[in-house]
This record gives sequence, structure tokens and C-alpha cells, in this order.
Amino acid sequence: MKKKIKKVNAAILIIGNEILSGRTQDRNVAFISNWLNSKCGISVNEVRIIQDVEKTIVENILTLSKKFNYVFTTGGIGPTHDDITAKSISKAFKVKYEYHEKAYKILEKYYGKKKFNDGRKKMAKMPRGAELILNPSSAAPGFVTKNILSLPGVPSILNSMIEHCKKYLVKGLKIHSKTISLFTVESNISKQLGSIQKKYKKYVDIGSYPFFRLGKIGVSIVSRSTSIVKLKKVNNELMKLVKLKKIKILKI
Amino acid sequence: MKKKIKKVNAAILIIGNEILSGRTQDRNVAFISNWLNSKCGISVNEVRIIQDVEKTIVENILTLSKKFNYVFTTGGIGPTHDDITAKSISKAFKVKYEYHEKAYKILEKYYGKKKFNDGRKKMAKMPRGAELILNPSSAAPGFVTKNILSLPGVPSILNSMIEHCKKYLVKGLKIHSKTISLFTVESNISKQLGSIQKKYKKYVDIGSYPFFRLGKIGVSIVSRSTSIVKLKKVNNELMKLVKLKKIKILKI
Repeated sequence: MKKKIKKVNAAILIIGNEILSGRTQDRNVAFISNWLNSKCGISVNEVRIIQDVEKTIVENILTLSKKFNYVFTTGGIGPTHDDITAKSISKAFKVKYEYHEKAYKILEKYYGKKKFNDGRKKMAKMPRGAELILNPSSAAPGFVTKNILSLPGVPSILNSMIEHCKKYLVKGLKIHSKTISLFTVESNISKQLGSIQKKYKKYVDIGSYPFFRLGKIGVSIVSRSTSIVKLKKVNNELMKLVKLKKIKILKI
Repeated sequence: MKKKIKKVNAAILIIGNEILSGRTQDRNVAFISNWLNSKCGISVNEVRIIQDVEKTIVENILTLSKKFNYVFTTGGIGPTHDDITAKSISKAFKVKYEYHEKAYKILEKYYGKKKFNDGRKKMAKMPRGAELILNPSSAAPGFVTKNILSLPGVPSILNSMIEHCKKYLVKGLKIHSKTISLFTVESNISKQLGSIQKKYKKYVDIGSYPFFRLGKIGVSIVSRSTSIVKLKKVNNELMKLVKLKKIKILKI
């Protein structure tokens, strides 16, 4: 892990028709985002879910790679015809799409020379110059091309690889968060909440999210900041508001 | 529901820091996409998840509204300071952000004149000329601006409103799909699958998705097409491949 800089951001690019069609419920956004937040102080500022179409992948890779410090791609690195992430990234950056020597060796050893067929060999093809993200659960590595980190789409495999991404990332300041869940409705506190947000605009992000629990309606107020001191100040103001309005707090 | 045209597409724009931060697991993409597919013959071609930031919302609204037949937004239409969807869409299309007469009446009736405070009134503010999407569960309506349909972020409320979107949509040809789940690995069939996809490229999209069930690894082959005839042809070719390779099928 390299030196800390103040604000580091990332985007996630989900490549896969199965998520777009609603057939598969995505689980990777929440997992990657939580990991980046808690372990690396990196916040995810945008997510895109796109089709397995080369032109679309190329366009999105180029746009997101310029806009954010890091881009995580998920999906499209398996052995089948619809797995075109590596090829598309090569095209985006105009580098050769070729066998990665180390990845080839890892896969050949994993499957054995006899069972190392064309489909499996395809998983060793990457953009020239890529660095590997090791895969402890099914061998086929992910890879890093410039600021793009490419991971598989299957959540259990992705989860097993995420720690290996760390060495390619510059850590940002840790983002702290504080949640208070209140048995009230948003419109009862929206005015005061808006004033508190305005006062701490520069330092703290305050979000308000309705919930339903135990047959009652409530609102969770989530404050996020890199400064614990400012977060405490916001929390004190929120507690004053809670007292003033005589709102019950949900204790979890 | 208006006359059928051949291919109709849509994008979904999820507006909300809580999804980006990983705090909340999105459920709306799969729900909206499944509904559009099965009830309207509309396929979702792109999803973006973005922050509650006016400039970001404006940019994405303009881009997606040009690129796709419809754009569904979710989130940011409640009473609090971070609910800025309606205001941002007004800005994007340079129309006034003002009270919608009918929405105002609906909300005033729902809350009663005395309890109709500023936060609640805010939910009646929309881009000038917007049409309403009625909300049977909590009154506050969604709205349609040009080809943008704006819905709330809370899944249970969104789900209750979705049928009211139908009258604003042109129906596309129904997209049929057929799934075969096989107890094999992708690399065992990737070559033949690639050939079948190539042959039916114009008519059928074939996707291949690994699964784990009953302690075994498998692959689901999903074929999607507007033509049942072509879908059957692909299925026959797949069944030939299954026989040739002596692969066991998972019966669900």
C-alpha cells in the first residue's frame, strides 16, 4: 500500500448482460464499495452496468479511466465468447491482446497440460503489460491495466481476490460514518436537517433514508466524513434536534 | 399502451449516495429491468449509479435521454435536502422548477392542510409540464419529463407505482428467453458455444453464466431473442452439443 493522499475515488464498471436483463441480482457493487471504503479510504463515485459489446466497453473504459483514480471492472474474463473484457481494454488503450506469460503458467499448472484447452488458454490473454491479480479460488487471474483493475463477475471468486488488489492502490483518508435511526418521517425533520447539512457542507455528507421496521416507519440519518471531530459536531446537532422534536431512537 | 415498434430500449439512473457507498443493496435495477422485459418488451441497455450532486445528475440526464428511448430515474424525490432529482431535471431541460398543481392537491389531501408542511410541499415541486406517475402506497407521485420517468428509491414504493408507468411507454417486441443449466464447466463448451453464437449473431444473444449448486459447478446458458423460431433453433443446437459431450442437465 502506497502513501496516503487526501481524496481517492473509484468507479465500478459491471460488464454483463445478465445483470442488465435483471436475471442476476448484482452483489459486487456493495461488496467492492464497502471494501474500498473501509479498507482503503477510497470512495466509489460512479457505477455503470453495460452490455457485453466491445464498442461500449471501449468507450466506457476510456471515459471512466480519465474521470476517476481507479476503475474496477467485473465480469467478462472467463473462457466463453461473451467474455471480451481483456480484448476490449487492449483495444481501448491500443496495446496488444496476447498471452500473459505468468498467467499462462498459472493456468497450465492448475489444469494440467492435457486439459489446458483453447477456452482455458483464453483466460491467459490480456492487454500487453498487464499486472496480475491472483485468484486463490479458481486460478484464473484478474489483471491491472493502467488504472483499471479487472475482476471476474462471480461474487465468491471476486471476494476471494479483493485483498490482492490492495498493492495496486494508493490509500485515501479513511471515511468515517455515523448512523442514527429515528422513528419519525423525513418531512418532520427535513428543514432542520437541511440547515445542519448547509452548515457542515464542506466536511460532512448527510444522507436521509426511510426504513420500515417492526411495523413502523423511520428514517436513518447517515453522516460521512474524513474528520471524526466534524462528525461528532454533526451528531451533537442531530441529538439536539431529536430531543427538541421528542423523537424515539431505534437502538440496534 | 401505444403501438408496437421493433426494438425499444431504456437506461436506469440510480441517484443515491447510499447505493454507491455500499450501505444499501440496490434492488431496483433487477425489478425494473424484469418488468420492462416481460411486460413491455423493452430492454435495459445501460445502468448508472451516481451521487446526489446536481451537476452530475444534469450531465447524466442529458446524455442518457439522448442515447436511449426511455430513462428511469430512482431516488431523490423525497422531502429532504439530498432529494434534488426534480430540481436537477428542471435544470437539465431548462424548464421551471415549480409546484405541480395536481401533485400539490394529492399531497395536501393525503396529509391534511394542517400537516402539509414545507418538506411535504417540496414533493409537489417538479419540472414544468411534467406528467404524474401515481403512487398508491405513499401518495407522493413520480413524474415524467420528456422521456425521463422519475420514481422513488424505496423499493416497496417503487414497485407499487410501476404499473402506472405503462401508459407513458411505447411497447417493443417481446423478448423471449430460454435457459439451460448444465453440469459442466464453461471451458468445456466455450468453442462450440462461440460457433453457435456466431451463426445466430443477428437474432439471438447467448450468454453463459457459471453457477454453484448442490456442491457442483455448472453453467447456465441463456439465449434471448424476439424470435421464438430462432430461439428454438439455437436450443436444438445446444441440445446436440449436450448429447455429444454427454453433459448432465440440471432440472429445475
